[in-house]
Amino acid sequence: MLDTATLDKLDADLQAYGLKTERIPAGEMLATGERVRFELPSGHLIELFAEKTKVGNGIPLINPAPWAKARDNGIAPIRLDHTLLYGPNVAAVQKIFTEVLGFYLVERVLTPDGNANAAIWLSCGQKVHDIAFAEYPEPGKLHHCSFLMESWEHVLRAGDIMSMNAVPVDIGPTRHGVTRGCTIYAWDPSGNRFETFMGGHLPYPDYETMTWTFDNFGQGLDYPQRKLHETFLTVVS
Amino acid sequence: MLDTATLDKLDADLQAYGLKTERIPAGEMLATGERVRFELPSGHLIELFAEKTKVGNGIPLINPAPWAKARDNGIAPIRLDHTLLYGPNVAAVQKIFTEVLGFYLVERVLTPDGNANAAIWLSCGQKVHDIAFAEYPEPGKLHHCSFLMESWEHVLRAGDIMSMNAVPVDIGPTRHGVTRGCTIYAWDPSGNRFETFMGGHLPYPDYETMTWTFDNFGQGLDYPQRKLHETFLTVVS
Amino acid sequence: MLDTATLDKLDADLQAYGLKTERIPAGEMLATGERVRFELPSGHLIELFAEKTKVGNGIPLINPAPWAKARDNGIAPIRLDHTLLYGPNVAAVQKIFTEVLGFYLVERVLTPDGNANAAIWLSCGQKVHDIAFAEYPEPGKLHHCSFLMESWEHVLRAGDIMSMNAVPVDIGPTRHGVTRGCTIYAWDPSGNRFETFMGGHLPYPDYETMTWTFDNFGQGLDYPQRKLHETFLTVVS
Amino acid sequence: MLDTATLDKLDADLQAYGLKTERIPAGEMLATGERVRFELPSGHLIELFAEKTKVGNGIPLINPAPWAKARDNGIAPIRLDHTLLYGPNVAAVQKIFTEVLGFYLVERVLTPDGNANAAIWLSCGQKVHDIAFAEYPEPGKLHHCSFLMESWEHVLRAGDIMSMNAVPVDIGPTRHGVTRGCTIYAWDPSGNRFETFMGGHLPYPDYETMTWTFDNFGQGLDYPQRKLHETFLTVVS
Repeated sequence: MLDTATLDKLDADLQAYGLKTERIPAGEMLATGERVRFELPSGHLIELFAEKTKVGNGIPLINPAPWAKARDNGIAPIRLDHTLLYGPNVAAVQKIFTEVLGFYLVERVLTPDGNANAAIWLSCGQKVHDIAFAEYPEPGKLHHCSFLMESWEHVLRAGDIMSMNAVPVDIGPTRHGVTRGCTIYAWDPSGNRFETFMGGHLPYPDYETMTWTFDNFGQGLDYPQRKLHETFLTVVS
Repeated sequence: MLDTATLDKLDADLQAYGLKTERIPAGEMLATGERVRFELPSGHLIELFAEKTKVGNGIPLINPAPWAKARDNGIAPIRLDHTLLYGPNVAAVQKIFTEVLGFYLVERVLTPDGNANAAIWLSCGQKVHDIAFAEYPEPGKLHHCSFLMESWEHVLRAGDIMSMNAVPVDIGPTRHGVTRGCTIYAWDPSGNRFETFMGGHLPYPDYETMTWTFDNFGQGLDYPQRKLHETFLTVVS
Repeated sequence: MLDTATLDKLDADLQAYGLKTERIPAGEMLATGERVRFELPSGHLIELFAEKTKVGNGIPLINPAPWAKARDNGIAPIRLDHTLLYGPNVAAVQKIFTEVLGFYLVERVLTPDGNANAAIWLSCGQKVHDIAFAEYPEPGKLHHCSFLMESWEHVLRAGDIMSMNAVPVDIGPTRHGVTRGCTIYAWDPSGNRFETFMGGHLPYPDYETMTWTFDNFGQGLDYPQRKLHETFLTVVS
Repeated sequence: MLDTATLDKLDADLQAYGLKTERIPAGEMLATGERVRFELPSGHLIELFAEKTKVGNGIPLINPAPWAKARDNGIAPIRLDHTLLYGPNVAAVQKIFTEVLGFYLVERVLTPDGNANAAIWLSCGQKVHDIAFAEYPEPGKLHHCSFLMESWEHVLRAGDIMSMNAVPVDIGPTRHGVTRGCTIYAWDPSGNRFETFMGGHLPYPDYETMTWTFDNFGQGLDYPQRKLHETFLTVVS
């Protein structure tokens, strides 16, 4: 649980590891407590916080319905699921997440020579990934943000709604080999890629990492089609 | 119902329409009664028959289970669903199916100038199509045979099994705009394309035909992705 | 197809069979053409018509979307699917539907002695039933009207919405052995039972009738639970 | 992560809390390391261990398929999901799990007077429950063990297989209000109840506990039907 004591401890741990951190006062970001900011070797700024105003999701805490009626409006994901970032020094990033921040490595794709990780999927709970990184020469890039869907049928419905609204689709509906989750990727009007995602393994911290060899990355990305779609290999911002 | 009297009547109707028919004796094809054969203006040979040895599907007629245990083996479609044929003279083919054989036109894609049908989907019952034709210069070509799946989840499972067995996939999983059915296309080892298909509208003979303009054919083929995949436009044999 | 000529023919056929028919002028029922009315030996009045003003379902005929946005409101069935009626003389009713009206018998439940049908499921197309009858001493009773749902997941969602709105539920969600369709039964505010139904076999007129023995009727009604729920055995009006 | 150091710490923490613990040597249970055993105030013996021989689930660690072919045999759950235990002193049990063992309270049902918890659902990760307890006068009772299913469609299929094999079913298929998971309960040949379960919220340790009032327990158990099925209220051993 992320309380203020944990935030302080993580700040101290990051500094002890050799990273420079910065405290940003509560309130500087709307409805958010004090933040600890640091930069990853991949060029991404990460911020940790322990306090956030709870606004709920429309489901009451007493005798809750299984879903909020608002779910029926549009694609209606359950929540933000994860993000995939592109940048250099993935090995160093992995060390910070696993040795300081308490994540574990769920899956990885090897580089062509098999000596390093081309991409890593990290979890700090039991979701198949909370954050993922892919090695990329330019620092600080975003590949996509991902939203959690209810079921494979809801992923299909998301694709219907994208098409009805002329939202440009990247790949999917399909299943990933990596994570075994099911997916559609599309672009929002500002050019950012987003994912409607469901499923995936149910990992535990002591699970052994699953490894994809580079020659099988196509199957890892699109399990039925087994190919690296060209559009998917681009970053968005 | 196709009994021998109906077979004789269809034979007479086809001849009255001006088509040459041929009778092929019972037994010439395994477990099949007498056949009436004729050639379509698209170059395809069609055969009608009224008798076939029933072998069942593993579900008994007394206190039937909802599915046969054999369904669990592999992709396990419920039944053959339809076929899509490519050839010339689609307008003439449509007349034969609708005026002589009792089919009705469920959906169609227009030619770019909007003056003719580039592709037609025909039903003789309440399946969204029993047979379909696309205009193509070469006569007598097959695009695909399609197998009926239980659900969208079974289509995903079919894609998993294709990938596990290195079966080359053409397109999907996705939803068609035309028919609104869900699909994966793949190739069998002899090079023929097959489809694992589910869903679709529930049409009646007095439904009005649904029409796709040519510029929207991409959406008609792949509803979320809205594109005409190049591989899909090839015939197989 | 039900055009005026067919309506006239069915009227003549019913009379030739020995049933008294009555013609009700066009317009007497809103948006409906002339009707042919007759009474079944079960005490139900049946009306046939060939003309009805088409109001559409929100999906356009040109470049149709796979579903109308209105589908997202509430339970949102696709269409009326079938009805189950209770009354005497089911054997005589079956003869009228199969010998005069062009239906065929898809499934049946035998009486305890196995000598007659306690209940029959009749189709005039490829839906697993368009109308069904159960033997019952009182004439002219309704058991339920059924609405077609998109999927098993939509049946679950229907149950959620019933519970959110305090709609009294009879049985389900479950699968029927008979028809293999999936279902929830509930009561509307006027006390009529309705069903949210999906799935079922895809029958053809030449399929052999499937038969349930009376001792297995519990499995026929509720396949997983294998019991005749007491509330379900009541008629509603 | 449960390593030997964690096991030692939990043992010390349990003792510090005032519970008597017992060490059972490695190997006493097949393929299992040293265990720490203690008794709950509910009368249940709990054992913790840090080492277990990994036998895998048929999915390889290199280029893993999304599921093992063995999944197609029978009901084929993904894994053991949770258990529900019945016994006295649920409040004391809750304290041990939340204050010593690192669990958090996800959901609860209140007693009729609203002053205590009649039942509690506890998680030590992001599953909606890893263990649950219901207040019951007799100590040390088991209500059910639960197995994780892939989807709502797999729950239906489990019910089909139960019926095909004459497995006695308790309740379901249905959705729980509590946890919002979907379920069938059945009895194995030795008389123990088991559950085939899927879905549920995705909780975090800092989520606020969801509360069910006693008068709504029927909806909490069976969301569509809103009733406490009598058979369900029995313990099994």
